[in-house]
Amino acid sequence: MRLTPAGELARRISALQKLLQQKGVDGALIMDPADLFYFAGTGQRGHLFIPAGGRPLLMVKKSFIRARDESALEDIVPLANVKYLDKMLNEYGYQNLTTLGLELDVLPAALYLLLQRLFPGAQPVDISSLIRTVRMVKSTYELEVIRDAAQLNYIMYSKAREYIKEGISELELAGQLEMVYRLAGHSGTVRMRGFDQEVYYGHILSGSSGGIPSCMESATGGMGVSVSFPQGAGFKKIARNEPVVIDYAGVIDGYMVDQTRVYCIGQLPDKLVRAHEAALRIQEAVKQLAVPGALCEDIYRQAVHLAAASGFGEHFMGYSEPVPFIGHGIGIELNEWPVLAPGFKTPLEKDMVIALEPKFIFPEGVVGVENTCVVGEKGLETLTLFDENIIYLK
Amino acid sequence: MRLTPAGELARRISALQKLLQQKGVDGALIMDPADLFYFAGTGQRGHLFIPAGGRPLLMVKKSFIRARDESALEDIVPLANVKYLDKMLNEYGYQNLTTLGLELDVLPAALYLLLQRLFPGAQPVDISSLIRTVRMVKSTYELEVIRDAAQLNYIMYSKAREYIKEGISELELAGQLEMVYRLAGHSGTVRMRGFDQEVYYGHILSGSSGGIPSCMESATGGMGVSVSFPQGAGFKKIARNEPVVIDYAGVIDGYMVDQTRVYCIGQLPDKLVRAHEAALRIQEAVKQLAVPGALCEDIYRQAVHLAAASGFGEHFMGYSEPVPFIGHGIGIELNEWPVLAPGFKTPLEKDMVIALEPKFIFPEGVVGVENTCVVGEKGLETLTLFDENIIYLK
Repeated sequence: MRLTPAGELARRISALQKLLQQKGVDGALIMDPADLFYFAGTGQRGHLFIPAGGRPLLMVKKSFIRARDESALEDIVPLANVKYLDKMLNEYGYQNLTTLGLELDVLPAALYLLLQRLFPGAQPVDISSLIRTVRMVKSTYELEVIRDAAQLNYIMYSKAREYIKEGISELELAGQLEMVYRLAGHSGTVRMRGFDQEVYYGHILSGSSGGIPSCMESATGGMGVSVSFPQGAGFKKIARNEPVVIDYAGVIDGYMVDQTRVYCIGQLPDKLVRAHEAALRIQEAVKQLAVPGALCEDIYRQAVHLAAASGFGEHFMGYSEPVPFIGHGIGIELNEWPVLAPGFKTPLEKDMVIALEPKFIFPEGVVGVENTCVVGEKGLETLTLFDENIIYLK
Repeated sequence: MRLTPAGELARRISALQKLLQQKGVDGALIMDPADLFYFAGTGQRGHLFIPAGGRPLLMVKKSFIRARDESALEDIVPLANVKYLDKMLNEYGYQNLTTLGLELDVLPAALYLLLQRLFPGAQPVDISSLIRTVRMVKSTYELEVIRDAAQLNYIMYSKAREYIKEGISELELAGQLEMVYRLAGHSGTVRMRGFDQEVYYGHILSGSSGGIPSCMESATGGMGVSVSFPQGAGFKKIARNEPVVIDYAGVIDGYMVDQTRVYCIGQLPDKLVRAHEAALRIQEAVKQLAVPGALCEDIYRQAVHLAAASGFGEHFMGYSEPVPFIGHGIGIELNEWPVLAPGFKTPLEKDMVIALEPKFIFPEGVVGVENTCVVGEKGLETLTLFDENIIYLK
């Protein structure tokens, strides 16, 4: 179990402070669990105040004892109730704030209104984009953890070769693979940013399950086991000569990789084989294009152009309700920045980590590939491991 | 896979409309996934407008096709972007709103601010308490689904007898029990209300793991596998003569039960045995007290009094950082209303469903019991099944 090193936390906090200063924000109040883990190195519940300059203060609701053990920050205090936040900051010398940075994309409105009453003189500023910008570029430490998550997924995809059998349900396969995950230390949780974004380990899609529209901002979703959570593995039985797609996120020490592979018992129809090859070609082209300085939306457009040229354009990234992206940032959350999507004008930077997922969706199933990659000088370097071709099983 | 019947949705909507009328709120905009599932019967992403009087309108972001199949509501339309919400409501005759009910406890601030711009004439009103009030009392239909979840947990607790072995890790046990859940149709997700509330299936706590303080508003938490998500099963190996506690939530068709049982390979120390018996006695007393009309906080106080009288008072519901409750409402979310806690003056009503969990926490482990119960005329009726005594294994 890793603890985030003090130097790593200092680097992250300093990067945010630089952006706070540029935007003229006096300080940031970090309340979201993913952001708190990133900046404070703890999963305990609490709030972190990061002033534009000076020492951060971690105020812990529960468990204070464990937060002290987990976080490498120096100033950690218990906070019985969020309504004492102003007094606590006052006590530590953070007074007369004129602006206060908040994670308005996820902070509940009731808490936002409470903070306005606690800090009447402070103008609230949405700093979610600043936080997501800092988190976009990964450190050597983060890449090391992500490589461990890639190793976990390699184990899981290797085991899938043994577990995929004709006649078992998607759910049986899911149960077995999730046990592999758990034994290897997967926490079971895959974080997504946003209050109506929910995900489990990911999606297992056999044949026609792949063609079912998704409730998520994802090309595929699957049937799931209930309309309450209508995604992921369902009761459908795995059959011969259909794609069995595993799109699962491996998590180690809070960091994840997202990956997709296609298996088949028997032989896939020629159309799907050709579409899979087209997806691999698009992946290779994007890996070359995605050099530091390249714009996300330009890369997306090139990929769409290649998909159209392949003759399978209308099946690219969804069928009846396609999604407008081909890759997404990833790290502590499944939907980090940048996104390879129209309107995303961010230039790529070295050490951004992106899950690239060119896929073709047909009513009879899904083909394509997904790998988690890091931006290097010469384009994307793949971090996830395992054969990218259709994996034929007997 | 159940679909919520049309009559059930109509009953729920009508109950909320009555409260909206009482509070003088023109209409409610439901955006939270759990509330949306409750009032619209779908897990697809979208927004539901419930006017104080008249027909609700379900506006679906994704997937519109699936939402039409899942929801028994009559008026279902696609909505490309939340910024067209005002135009859509206008089109359906919902104009000139002077008040707008919102789920301010979970709605992100950015969305709240957007809605204020879209509906400048409408005063936002927090209706989360109205929604939680409606959801508190369960219907015959809901109780039927919850009984199915109880059956699922019975299977899981029965299997645990076979799987608990000296020397295996908590995580190995978790992997096996979670596979049992998955094969029986558990979606893998356990919903909790609140943006910093995260949970997986629950907690497996062997011996000293039970004494570790929790990041959650729960008596126990466990170590977990990472500081990113510091709860639940960890790498600790199960030993002889210590309590092995399984506190897991079984979910079927979106409804759950919460339950805790204590196993032991060998024999527990006498102190823990006596504390377990005290917990069972407190449970029985509370079951008698919890009749319709009884106040939640009075029941809590009685339980604390009984715990003190048992001689184990300082170990009741946590040790170093105890929690101030002995039971919580449950249904679609793990933390529903009512809560058997100080300050909770709600009188109990027939058909409320409550997870009652008197527990004693010692540095060397946890004992006690948790059952999901329904309020009947004569007190609590236990819905969850399985032997409540310490289950001794060889």
